[in-house]
Amino acid sequence: MTVAKESSLRSTLPGAYYTSPAMYEIEKEQIFARSWICIGRGDALEDAGHVLTAEVAGESILVVRDRSEQLHAYFNVCRHRGTRLCTSASDAVGSTIRCPYHGWTYGLDGRLLAAPNLKEMPDLEKALYGLHPVALASWGGYLWVCLDESAGPLAGQPDSQLDAQLVQRLGSLDVMAAYGLEDLAVARTITYDVAANWKALVENFTECYHCPTIHPELTTAVPEFASGYGSISGGRWHGAELGQEMAGFSRSGRATRPPLPGLTGGAERLFYGVILLPNVFLILVPDHVAFFRIEPVSAGETRVTCDWLFERAALADASFDPGDAVELLDITNRQDFSACERCQLGMGSRTFRDGGVLVPSEHLIADFYSYLARALGLPDEEPWPVAPDGLRN
Amino acid sequence: MTVAKESSLRSTLPGAYYTSPAMYEIEKEQIFARSWICIGRGDALEDAGHVLTAEVAGESILVVRDRSEQLHAYFNVCRHRGTRLCTSASDAVGSTIRCPYHGWTYGLDGRLLAAPNLKEMPDLEKALYGLHPVALASWGGYLWVCLDESAGPLAGQPDSQLDAQLVQRLGSLDVMAAYGLEDLAVARTITYDVAANWKALVENFTECYHCPTIHPELTTAVPEFASGYGSISGGRWHGAELGQEMAGFSRSGRATRPPLPGLTGGAERLFYGVILLPNVFLILVPDHVAFFRIEPVSAGETRVTCDWLFERAALADASFDPGDAVELLDITNRQDFSACERCQLGMGSRTFRDGGVLVPSEHLIADFYSYLARALGLPDEEPWPVAPDGLRN
Amino acid sequence: MTVAKESSLRSTLPGAYYTSPAMYEIEKEQIFARSWICIGRGDALEDAGHVLTAEVAGESILVVRDRSEQLHAYFNVCRHRGTRLCTSASDAVGSTIRCPYHGWTYGLDGRLLAAPNLKEMPDLEKALYGLHPVALASWGGYLWVCLDESAGPLAGQPDSQLDAQLVQRLGSLDVMAAYGLEDLAVARTITYDVAANWKALVENFTECYHCPTIHPELTTAVPEFASGYGSISGGRWHGAELGQEMAGFSRSGRATRPPLPGLTGGAERLFYGVILLPNVFLILVPDHVAFFRIEPVSAGETRVTCDWLFERAALADASFDPGDAVELLDITNRQDFSACERCQLGMGSRTFRDGGVLVPSEHLIADFYSYLARALGLPDEEPWPVAPDGLRN
Repeated sequence: MTVAKESSLRSTLPGAYYTSPAMYEIEKEQIFARSWICIGRGDALEDAGHVLTAEVAGESILVVRDRSEQLHAYFNVCRHRGTRLCTSASDAVGSTIRCPYHGWTYGLDGRLLAAPNLKEMPDLEKALYGLHPVALASWGGYLWVCLDESAGPLAGQPDSQLDAQLVQRLGSLDVMAAYGLEDLAVARTITYDVAANWKALVENFTECYHCPTIHPELTTAVPEFASGYGSISGGRWHGAELGQEMAGFSRSGRATRPPLPGLTGGAERLFYGVILLPNVFLILVPDHVAFFRIEPVSAGETRVTCDWLFERAALADASFDPGDAVELLDITNRQDFSACERCQLGMGSRTFRDGGVLVPSEHLIADFYSYLARALGLPDEEPWPVAPDGLRN
Repeated sequence: MTVAKESSLRSTLPGAYYTSPAMYEIEKEQIFARSWICIGRGDALEDAGHVLTAEVAGESILVVRDRSEQLHAYFNVCRHRGTRLCTSASDAVGSTIRCPYHGWTYGLDGRLLAAPNLKEMPDLEKALYGLHPVALASWGGYLWVCLDESAGPLAGQPDSQLDAQLVQRLGSLDVMAAYGLEDLAVARTITYDVAANWKALVENFTECYHCPTIHPELTTAVPEFASGYGSISGGRWHGAELGQEMAGFSRSGRATRPPLPGLTGGAERLFYGVILLPNVFLILVPDHVAFFRIEPVSAGETRVTCDWLFERAALADASFDPGDAVELLDITNRQDFSACERCQLGMGSRTFRDGGVLVPSEHLIADFYSYLARALGLPDEEPWPVAPDGLRN
Repeated sequence: MTVAKESSLRSTLPGAYYTSPAMYEIEKEQIFARSWICIGRGDALEDAGHVLTAEVAGESILVVRDRSEQLHAYFNVCRHRGTRLCTSASDAVGSTIRCPYHGWTYGLDGRLLAAPNLKEMPDLEKALYGLHPVALASWGGYLWVCLDESAGPLAGQPDSQLDAQLVQRLGSLDVMAAYGLEDLAVARTITYDVAANWKALVENFTECYHCPTIHPELTTAVPEFASGYGSISGGRWHGAELGQEMAGFSRSGRATRPPLPGLTGGAERLFYGVILLPNVFLILVPDHVAFFRIEPVSAGETRVTCDWLFERAALADASFDPGDAVELLDITNRQDFSACERCQLGMGSRTFRDGGVLVPSEHLIADFYSYLARALGLPDEEPWPVAPDGLRN
């Protein structure tokens, strides 16, 4: 069942990497518990005491805005007996976070303020029982957390998680900056529950080899994609031109809005797809941005939350209707996720034990494999070990 | 994430003890398959041939009353090919138990009487294929079984399972005896399916530190509980006085019935909570008793069956209505079980890997940990091993 | 709990063989991935391009008829990235099988014909990426596949899977041949989802010791079965006479059709039950044949698809109604599967850890155990190892 030596094609990961619950657990620890993970919109927490919860690497994380507008993230776990402090996705507390079981009370800065019947507890000891903090950062209007205290910064430095990827894929930070992501507002959100491994979604987003087969609408909008080479050249994503008939990236081909104000030098007619590993995809088009948040749920399940972002001013305009733009990408998303689900069904086969193959136009996927190899501590070379250390099934 | 040495607080069990399926299996074998387990009411089996089935430590157990009123318990498994003999919770058989698959027929005393086509089978050989017996005892009107043939008695001796606990917690057997539990009758039963580990329920019942936070109705009825110290002093449960406005333990504060006839010396105004490990809780109040039967279902699920027991004579009284009494405890139960479910959600966090802490008013929980340590063969000392032998996840 | 040495009865398999997910995985690999497995009717694929999919040992298998009426079976997995090629149970393709994800295109003979953007791919390299073939054969109007390329033939040789079993059980191939199975047509199909291990169904079909207990209708139709000895003598199934009142094997006792034309020498009045391990049961009666296809779904779940087959001419006859015949066997099937489900419930008990016992009239079951021992590489002797190598729970 192994691919004969004569093949000129590179290998994919072995099948178990996509289907094994043990591999999923390893990735949860090695990747999702050690990287900056996007958990949602920053504007969900406008006022002091507003709380948002999210799940990262199997952990419930609580984010709260304090009276001085500072945001804090904590493990959503009382230090006394382990009670989950907040059980809803969004909530509002007063000036403290109080455990609903025994009443241990924390400041919005995480310090233990009071524990019933422990009034004599010295401050020195209280300091032992503050909420466990989680690193928090904002970028592009979104909140990101990192469970690993020793991780580097999210952005703002050349080797930071986002800057390094943006420069590698787009050539500079300027391409991204022109869209003014942090100033855009959400016009529509669609959540997709996909019965496929999160890595299958990354691979799907990385290559356009499937575009001529499954995306008739997309390849009409961006004719270059009909070639199957997508917008990748020299290891980078370049902007792909919209079709001549397309005034905007929408189902009808009409522009929904004028181009975003920062776009110059031709970007007013380009389409970019960008992946910010491990859990964000971006689509950049002239008049809007689509922001995909990827949440692995199990080895074979992934939740995708896709926001369509437009200029904040558009949302105040009574005549604004994002439906035409949403429709084109929503159709494309459903085509992609359906393909990933079919792929997931086959990747458990014994004939896929050693994986499949990548054609040349899919070679950027191998960069993703290098990323995984670094994260999992594997040698970055083919053949991939079918069962990496700790991978039980 | 570990609690610094300076802490004066004792530790709880590590998080995995509450969430790990492997620990659940260990407890099933080491505790539930070796202890006397309450399985239901004795009066469910009034006539000869009446059958009751129950699940203990993953085993279906069959209890039957014979012609001489003797009760017998057996594994509910045919010795021929393993068929489950009785599939309903209660049933009636004639003078024999006949396997519905191939017709092997057992006396109510468990002896194999006949097997089709094996008429020549000598009695000597038939003796090899009687139903596997299970130890059975009655106490307080309830049936208890023990899968371990070498276990000591349920009650009636100082070191028996019930007597030892009653004396340790109440000071003597007399406190309990005064309620005449075995003569009471069930007026109401409510079953609660709780998404929490059984030990979280034991801990919740053991401490009243949560009472001021979650039990406004209970602390009105028993004002002493508002202190958070509950009815524990010197390692024992003492009776807690009902509030002055409370003529009885009920939602309205009215007495449902006169005090039980055996109560003297002040017990007519007291509330006792009693745990009879591993699977019974009792609430003793002046005019009734609540009997909780705890059935672990999985690491994170527990079924609780709560009976409200009154004098048998009350049930014959047309004006008798237990609803007011039931309502107060039912409200309290729901508050407790909801808190346990919130606690369960957090105990799987990596920040709870080494567990949480016990405040001084919770120290009786440490006695429960000692009980567990003995049962599981662990050293009874902190820190608890995060992964005891055989604990896989 | 072990059976004492004095017993003259043979042992069944240990309980875990019927309940353990690990044993189920072992059997999937050692038995179902190495034997010829019946997957459905051949006439489901009448025309070129017709496709049928089936699951064997956890693998999706695709069968297709080509332009020269030849049938081919393949793993239903694209060689490129592992996509499942066909997702419905039956489908029709044109002259090629095209992967719906990236468009890799295979001939109906399995050869890779084209891959987008790889036009320069030399034929030598294309040969590396044909669909993985699966051995395919027809017998009795049914399709059978075998995942193991080194397996012997399905039929037509003395040591082939079917011939060896038919001769051993019926004495010669002639008994079976007389029914002209390959020329019969399906009049009715009923699918049963049974909550029991597949081996419990094999054992149930092998012995008639249960017949007097659970099959009043069957023992009326075939009085010999009331003895509990079924139609087994000397290690073989003989034909059992229909009751004198029975003109045919049906609920009413009326014949549905004249006897099948090939039947002579008394077979016009006989009932045969035949097992063709590992996944087919047959009931042969004068005017029809019932064909059971057994699909293990998990350790405790099995799907049975039962076809009632009559002469093809009957189906063209407007007055033909198979209902009376179907009813008798359907009643019997439901009785059997219900008994298997009760048996499954008990086989997980610790008292069944070493298994139960076989009475003399069940001894043909021991031949099935020998078959299992050979397949699993175990010594064919009692006591069976409770945990064979690799059996984890």
